[in-house]
Amino acid sequence: MVEVAVVKVHLDKARSYPILIGQDLLSSAAWQLKKLGLKGKVLILTNTTVAKFYGKKLEQVLKQNYTCLTYAVPDGEVYKNLSTVQKIYDFLLKNKYDRQTIIVALGGGVVGDMAGYVAGTYLRGVSFVQVPTTLLAQVDSSVGGKTGVNHPLGKNMIGVFYQPKLVLIDLNVLSTLPEREFLSGLAEVIKYGLIYDRRFYKYLGQFSREKVRDLQKIIKRCCEIKASVVAKDEKEYGLRAILNFGHTVGHALEAYTNYKKFTHGEGVALGMVAAMQLSIDKKYITSDELQRLLMLYRRVGLLEKTDIKFNLKKIIALMLQDKKVKNGQINFVLIKKIGKAVVEPISQELIQKVMLLI
Amino acid sequence: MVEVAVVKVHLDKARSYPILIGQDLLSSAAWQLKKLGLKGKVLILTNTTVAKFYGKKLEQVLKQNYTCLTYAVPDGEVYKNLSTVQKIYDFLLKNKYDRQTIIVALGGGVVGDMAGYVAGTYLRGVSFVQVPTTLLAQVDSSVGGKTGVNHPLGKNMIGVFYQPKLVLIDLNVLSTLPEREFLSGLAEVIKYGLIYDRRFYKYLGQFSREKVRDLQKIIKRCCEIKASVVAKDEKEYGLRAILNFGHTVGHALEAYTNYKKFTHGEGVALGMVAAMQLSIDKKYITSDELQRLLMLYRRVGLLEKTDIKFNLKKIIALMLQDKKVKNGQINFVLIKKIGKAVVEPISQELIQKVMLLI
Repeated sequence: MVEVAVVKVHLDKARSYPILIGQDLLSSAAWQLKKLGLKGKVLILTNTTVAKFYGKKLEQVLKQNYTCLTYAVPDGEVYKNLSTVQKIYDFLLKNKYDRQTIIVALGGGVVGDMAGYVAGTYLRGVSFVQVPTTLLAQVDSSVGGKTGVNHPLGKNMIGVFYQPKLVLIDLNVLSTLPEREFLSGLAEVIKYGLIYDRRFYKYLGQFSREKVRDLQKIIKRCCEIKASVVAKDEKEYGLRAILNFGHTVGHALEAYTNYKKFTHGEGVALGMVAAMQLSIDKKYITSDELQRLLMLYRRVGLLEKTDIKFNLKKIIALMLQDKKVKNGQINFVLIKKIGKAVVEPISQELIQKVMLLI
Repeated sequence: MVEVAVVKVHLDKARSYPILIGQDLLSSAAWQLKKLGLKGKVLILTNTTVAKFYGKKLEQVLKQNYTCLTYAVPDGEVYKNLSTVQKIYDFLLKNKYDRQTIIVALGGGVVGDMAGYVAGTYLRGVSFVQVPTTLLAQVDSSVGGKTGVNHPLGKNMIGVFYQPKLVLIDLNVLSTLPEREFLSGLAEVIKYGLIYDRRFYKYLGQFSREKVRDLQKIIKRCCEIKASVVAKDEKEYGLRAILNFGHTVGHALEAYTNYKKFTHGEGVALGMVAAMQLSIDKKYITSDELQRLLMLYRRVGLLEKTDIKFNLKKIIALMLQDKKVKNGQINFVLIKKIGKAVVEPISQELIQKVMLLI
């Protein structure tokens, strides 16, 4: 067993929280919550797929110290909407969950985002704990307090900033994660290297995902980078936007196919190609770097059989719905050099040109 | 014209904001927003009743400096729900409102609570300005950042803490406020005296609502008290709960009659009678104090023709839905002495006994 790694997210004191990364952490959940001083009734929010693997186990563990019920939403990004959220509110109120409530998100990004949104808006905010079960959620969405749901006109359009009290990353749960989902997470891992850490990016060319120690190391580094960025700019007034590298195009592609065709990571991986191309156009990096990225994709198996067709005008229209749009102008995260990102407005003409290349 | 009075709500620096209280402040709205450095497109959120009186005027004023649209919801507490909120999200997205958006609430508590909730959850938060048009909103709901909507199972069950950038209190708009609504606000004014300021409470026995200066003084003092309490305990971990004096019973009565029979202030006025009775039972105050309160009600005209009938069991069940319920126990704000409030758990038996008296 590897030792438990701890990454701390530093916010104003009452809101700082730890991220724990280790093996079989699910088993220690009741104890971890108690250690934080959390009292009250627990609701495990999960989806029907994850519930089958880990729902009963986590519920049993939590029942050591807490009254605990489980609510499982259907599996899929299409259910990440206000209609599902309303059903959860109904469940909470019918079961008399009060202000002491602890909402535990057991699942991937969809579950985590939605559970965080519910935790942030139920009775104006109750306690929230993340137990991410996908690599994507472990390295990205479970850390940093962005929560929300989709609207027919765009992804994560409705949401709040709401920080968890604890993120519990159990490496063991990745054993049941489908390969395509694992790869989706790897896209975000690669993103961190590109925008923030050249050395880490290089390391990704050689790590072994079979070794628990390597996996823990990668997840830890991603959490450290995210924690550092979030501590500096929690509400995304500036710096934090760099975490959206590849996401402008990625979100648009996901929305265009109704969140059915691409995984989030595939969207981001494609978006990173577009953003790298834009960075080349701006002469920030050379085309060698894009080639190197594509080689890395091939090495890990990203985008291998991804079939990409889209209507350019509709994609651009979707990008204009992006939250980073300011006064009608599309802002892109670009790579200034490997390990360093910037945000810049990009003309629609240039976007069109680049989109034809992906 | 009275001079503009300023009350400052002190929170962590970036979130502190001013409350301006004066005559014809609507006319200065565009300038005030600009002074705060707000850029972006404005949405005035109002209701159909207020829109008729002040909607066009405010829109014209704001158009001096801003692109500005108006969205009017139907008038009434029954429309303060997630279904209305969804329509507002749709409107914002269809009209491409971005992160720079400034949402201006023009109306009473219902409009302000809902507009604040939308501002707090749209794109994870956009700028928010309160222009309260009822006495109730001016002295209470527009200050302090509580936002939210109702759920069939309880009032304000869904919400966020989200502070405005500015509260603009125009005394002139009270001239069109129906008498019953004015009285509703006075109930909250009286509440501030009872829980926080004995001298102010006494003054309420003699002020003249016809004098602008007296009106400004009263509103200012209420805002000062609220600002002081909110600065000490923004998220209601403790002290802030005293602002809910009279509200446990009040909310239950409102919910019981589907928000149709009682104004909020009438509910609170009745709730204050119940809470005073509980305080007498606890021997904190004498029954003289309750008598004095009822005299004050009579002097200002509160509860004059209010017809009160209810099913006790149903009312208690509704109280158990109150957000202040902790582990199934109903917590009441009581008066320790005039000008000083405390929060204490109260048994259901005692509540039943007291409810039979109102």
